[in-house]
Amino acid sequence: MNERQIIDTIAALAGPADGRLLKGIGDDCAVIGGDSGRAWLLTLDTLIEGVHFDPAFHPPELLGRKAVSVNVSDIAAMGGRPCFALLSAGLPPGFDQDWFAAFARGLAGACADYGCRIIGGDTVASPAGYNFSLTVLGEAPAEQVLYRSSARVGDTIWVSGDLGLAAAGLALLSGGLGSGEAQFERLRAKHLDPPARVALGRELAASRLVHAMMDLSDGLATDLAHLCEESGVGARVIAADLPGPATLAAAARLVGADAEQWAIAGGEDFELLFTAPPEAADRLQAIGAACGLALSPVGSIVAGEGVILVRQGVDGRPVEQPIAYQGYDHFPDSGGGDDARRTR
Amino acid sequence: MNERQIIDTIAALAGPADGRLLKGIGDDCAVIGGDSGRAWLLTLDTLIEGVHFDPAFHPPELLGRKAVSVNVSDIAAMGGRPCFALLSAGLPPGFDQDWFAAFARGLAGACADYGCRIIGGDTVASPAGYNFSLTVLGEAPAEQVLYRSSARVGDTIWVSGDLGLAAAGLALLSGGLGSGEAQFERLRAKHLDPPARVALGRELAASRLVHAMMDLSDGLATDLAHLCEESGVGARVIAADLPGPATLAAAARLVGADAEQWAIAGGEDFELLFTAPPEAADRLQAIGAACGLALSPVGSIVAGEGVILVRQGVDGRPVEQPIAYQGYDHFPDSGGGDDARRTR
Repeated sequence: MNERQIIDTIAALAGPADGRLLKGIGDDCAVIGGDSGRAWLLTLDTLIEGVHFDPAFHPPELLGRKAVSVNVSDIAAMGGRPCFALLSAGLPPGFDQDWFAAFARGLAGACADYGCRIIGGDTVASPAGYNFSLTVLGEAPAEQVLYRSSARVGDTIWVSGDLGLAAAGLALLSGGLGSGEAQFERLRAKHLDPPARVALGRELAASRLVHAMMDLSDGLATDLAHLCEESGVGARVIAADLPGPATLAAAARLVGADAEQWAIAGGEDFELLFTAPPEAADRLQAIGAACGLALSPVGSIVAGEGVILVRQGVDGRPVEQPIAYQGYDHFPDSGGGDDARRTR
Repeated sequence: MNERQIIDTIAALAGPADGRLLKGIGDDCAVIGGDSGRAWLLTLDTLIEGVHFDPAFHPPELLGRKAVSVNVSDIAAMGGRPCFALLSAGLPPGFDQDWFAAFARGLAGACADYGCRIIGGDTVASPAGYNFSLTVLGEAPAEQVLYRSSARVGDTIWVSGDLGLAAAGLALLSGGLGSGEAQFERLRAKHLDPPARVALGRELAASRLVHAMMDLSDGLATDLAHLCEESGVGARVIAADLPGPATLAAAARLVGADAEQWAIAGGEDFELLFTAPPEAADRLQAIGAACGLALSPVGSIVAGEGVILVRQGVDGRPVEQPIAYQGYDHFPDSGGGDDARRTR
């Protein structure tokens, strides 16, 4: 049973229909139609010690911030803004009170930054390590909500920011490499305290230029495969167009990893992945600039299925490689996929 | 740092105000005002293996049902009905797929029973044992929502059903005692598959007879202390009026425990605790009867603070004992409280 099969098991049992449910399992958020043309967006993400974070190098205040950001990123991916949050905190026996107080400060700080209020939760003993589960409730105008399932053949595929930074940062931190080097600070920060792209998501949704959108949490190869599957289309990604700073290659050399693999399958980018007609390019770039974020076209939506990565071959001719679903699976049942990361 | 202090730490950092928030941390659910006089009710509960359940004797299908019921009980306690649920499932390495499939069936079955739909969630690897966190979204007419904070001096204190059964059932199951005895089946079932009192909660809320309400999850002594504190009042509970079947005493003899202690501090009753003016008694009893549940007056709300248990002394005169906050604390920092239970 891999992660997808587990989700399918639950989705198959979803329960009675409710006319207000605009979207259930299968997107970044569940969407519930409200009155006055508003929609509620609901998402939940869990962080488990030793799986999603390593307290040895993750400062608790930044982890508290990250617990909020990874959820808010799902709200941003639908074009919404976060409003309310509920926290489930599992704390191990004899937990460090200063650590938890710092975690709570970070959580509250991020909530304040995003304009989101903590309204409840549950606090329980956890026999083995910390685990935190956050539920965030956001909102958006119902007609502006952006789904994964609306990509169209001919759309340009866009990503915000750079890809692979968080994976590089995690590799550096967990390997204890490059810790004194300022050039890697941005990579480390992207793993420890990734910002959610709320303003960009809202502007893109309001622009009506975008067809489909989601956030990049499992890596481009996996997330784009989800978007394609939900939309009934395929995708071609141009390797040379994947955005990343020169320090990414430097970090890859230092830890003996592959920068391109980080960019397509590293995960935890928490950037926005979206598709739009080619003629919208200039207006999209302007929106990105207004939000202080570079937007990069990285390929196109095509008929068919799957995700193809197109590289320049040694003879100058393009080489095509299928890359769908190359990201992290919590429950790999076939031994496939990269698993270089210690925590996730 | 005990459980209350942890919650206070988080509550102190709750974040920016939002005019739609009718109630944040401090009741069974958070309450968000919607349009058309409706309110959304949000609650979250976490079940951790070895803390809240023991897979050695908890059938997975019943555990799936319980994961739903303990959350829905919070919705019922505000007078609402559940609509939507999000599941966070933490599954250990090499988890038993049949076990999980049965858990999911139970979860879905309970959702269907309560008219609640699973709309999303997160599935993650858990290094040590199963952990499940469920967020449930319910609704109620805003003007009918019942809070903990509205008890008034002179109110009668009521509970639905019987108290202490789940604690007795857990003691029997974890001790491997009385397993062949049909008389204890109801006690075991109350721990394994406790029903949430949704119909009763809604009828009580609609009746407008009730002042304050909450569900009994940590035991009468602790939960009534919360209700009193939120309402700025005190309570007197009459020990002889605590409802419980004769089998409770038989189970207590078998395991060497105190049936009265189970009734006031056993926890996990998931019955409703509410207060109402004395003159409402007959109409309340009629509502209970219509819902198939006995309702029992167990004491009164008084001026002051704290919860007093009144027993008949050996000389025939009443003996008073303070019992506030005698329930389960996940993080006891003073060594107090009963802790005979292996799981919770």
